[in-house]
Amino acid sequence: MSDSRVTDEFAFIQSVQCLFQKYHRQQTLVANGDDAAVFQPKAGYAQVVCVDTIVEQIHFNRKTMTPEQIGHKALAINLSDLAAMGAEPHYFLASVAIPNSWSEQDVIRIFKGMQPLADHYHIDLLGGDTTSSPEQLMLTVTVLGEVHPQVKLLRSNARAGDVVFVTGFVGHSAAGLHVLLSDEDTAEQKRSEQQALVEAHQYAQPHIEQGMVFSSLAMQNDMRFSLNDISDGLASEAFEIATASEVDLVLHANQLPTSSALASYAQQVGVDALEWVLYGGEDFVLLGTMSVKHWLEVEKQFAKHDWPLHLVGRVMEGKGQVWLEHHDHKEIVLTRGYNHFKTRAAGDDEAGDEEHERSDQE
Amino acid sequence: MSDSRVTDEFAFIQSVQCLFQKYHRQQTLVANGDDAAVFQPKAGYAQVVCVDTIVEQIHFNRKTMTPEQIGHKALAINLSDLAAMGAEPHYFLASVAIPNSWSEQDVIRIFKGMQPLADHYHIDLLGGDTTSSPEQLMLTVTVLGEVHPQVKLLRSNARAGDVVFVTGFVGHSAAGLHVLLSDEDTAEQKRSEQQALVEAHQYAQPHIEQGMVFSSLAMQNDMRFSLNDISDGLASEAFEIATASEVDLVLHANQLPTSSALASYAQQVGVDALEWVLYGGEDFVLLGTMSVKHWLEVEKQFAKHDWPLHLVGRVMEGKGQVWLEHHDHKEIVLTRGYNHFKTRAAGDDEAGDEEHERSDQE
Repeated sequence: MSDSRVTDEFAFIQSVQCLFQKYHRQQTLVANGDDAAVFQPKAGYAQVVCVDTIVEQIHFNRKTMTPEQIGHKALAINLSDLAAMGAEPHYFLASVAIPNSWSEQDVIRIFKGMQPLADHYHIDLLGGDTTSSPEQLMLTVTVLGEVHPQVKLLRSNARAGDVVFVTGFVGHSAAGLHVLLSDEDTAEQKRSEQQALVEAHQYAQPHIEQGMVFSSLAMQNDMRFSLNDISDGLASEAFEIATASEVDLVLHANQLPTSSALASYAQQVGVDALEWVLYGGEDFVLLGTMSVKHWLEVEKQFAKHDWPLHLVGRVMEGKGQVWLEHHDHKEIVLTRGYNHFKTRAAGDDEAGDEEHERSDQE
Repeated sequence: MSDSRVTDEFAFIQSVQCLFQKYHRQQTLVANGDDAAVFQPKAGYAQVVCVDTIVEQIHFNRKTMTPEQIGHKALAINLSDLAAMGAEPHYFLASVAIPNSWSEQDVIRIFKGMQPLADHYHIDLLGGDTTSSPEQLMLTVTVLGEVHPQVKLLRSNARAGDVVFVTGFVGHSAAGLHVLLSDEDTAEQKRSEQQALVEAHQYAQPHIEQGMVFSSLAMQNDMRFSLNDISDGLASEAFEIATASEVDLVLHANQLPTSSALASYAQQVGVDALEWVLYGGEDFVLLGTMSVKHWLEVEKQFAKHDWPLHLVGRVMEGKGQVWLEHHDHKEIVLTRGYNHFKTRAAGDDEAGDEEHERSDQE
């Protein structure tokens, strides 16, 4: 039966449930197996919820990702959203539409790929849905978590004078995908040098713990943070903060963190590393702003855990634009974010505003 | 732009958000527009959550359902699951994968189709996800609600001696689909006679209020109910209660409620109405069991609201089987429920156990 297609929905669901039988949460009143799941929220806490869908051929393909990596990604995308709210994740639900082209074993491997994250963050699978699909596999994950209701790490929290930070390298995931797609005649040796980039694409880690540190600083020290996870690219996420807060964000080109692995691979393949840094998505690090007076305290907290924290720009009065500042000029980064329908627009002669334009204004 | 495809994800999301701008819930702390939504649960209450995906060509097609009806269905399926837990629905999230073959206007009509249910039950759209899809439209809805933690209307609650009930007609949705699919040369006149069946297919209503009455009787009068919504067919849902409770359910053939519309249409097209009653799905009425001593009190509550409540069988000691009892014999209803992958199994020479078999035992 090792490569058979899914023929028995109920047996399949049982196999998946077996993977997540060890419950981490005591507050689960009714888990898998009834019409809906029931749990008891922590008294006084707010619930945080988000959902994301990944679609075969759109968000992943089997050439560049194993089933386990696809499962990891579907859960990580959502956990990253919770991280950006400073929430502690507790539960998830997974709905999968399975085409004939997938074996039952491979779909179960997708769920196996969620296990390490579920175990690490002590989150329980609360339920889901299984159905067939005519063509592509599609996977929707809903994640639930908790945060103190006083904590609001919103996109609209940025103020002129704030500093802009990121909690890790950006562009790695995009560069890793480039390695994988241009891989045909690459020797294993060469590939291993790019392993950090490839891993960033295949196993990007959500910054849950970092988000919770922001949360606890906001609570205990009354600090104000705007926060966004970088799922659609640095430029796009910066734009979301800028527009939601009605300010301008200025990114300092020479402060954007670029690893040597990224720089050397970009040079090797003749790509401007900045393209990946600004427009590559799914690094799952956090982008945010805070008052400059809190910088040292936050930096200290991050240093305690040995987590990177990069100061990459500043917030100015403005109308929701993002700037990239070089030593002698700055340019507007015109982006409306990663748009899943961009290629359609391009075919309609309506494209153009997705590109960043140079404007030599000071 | 009336029939253009979705080209701007952000404009599309804004259009959808506009449809649900009137918030019903005061406890929403952060709604649409940040990384995740945040809400404050009612103190002392448990959260109830479920998710369902519907896929073009699998669960619906554009020949038999309008976009509004597809939206209604996606939300109704989930609300029906909450009804079966006796929960009050509060929030929903919707994730949609959109192929090129759908215009933006038609996708927005899907969301418009959710409005009447959202308004009726005072539930707010808390968030979602929008992405493209290579071939089929896919829609995943997550619904959240609340129930008192003491209330457990579980499938495993049936006990020998209980009576079995349903809260409305079953088989209508399946018969309605039959009307729609065999519609080509049907005169409008004739069609209108089957309107109740067609509406049951296109606008099946979840029994939220009924579920909440069971909930409140369980709380206040300490009554025990098993409860399931009939999404996959009466036989299948009965089987779920029987196996979860480790009892047998006996359905009385002559007590199964069959409307005159269903009976007359079945006769007209030469179909055994019982096939639709037992195996048709998505009627969204509730199937349950309760102690016979509570029957009159529950019946009174339902009569007060003018809701139907049909006694359709009894629970016996057993091992998880479902029986259909006629006046002189009973037959085992062998079903493992609606299996989305059944046709694959049939093609593999492994089918057979999905059929109900006759066994003339008493």
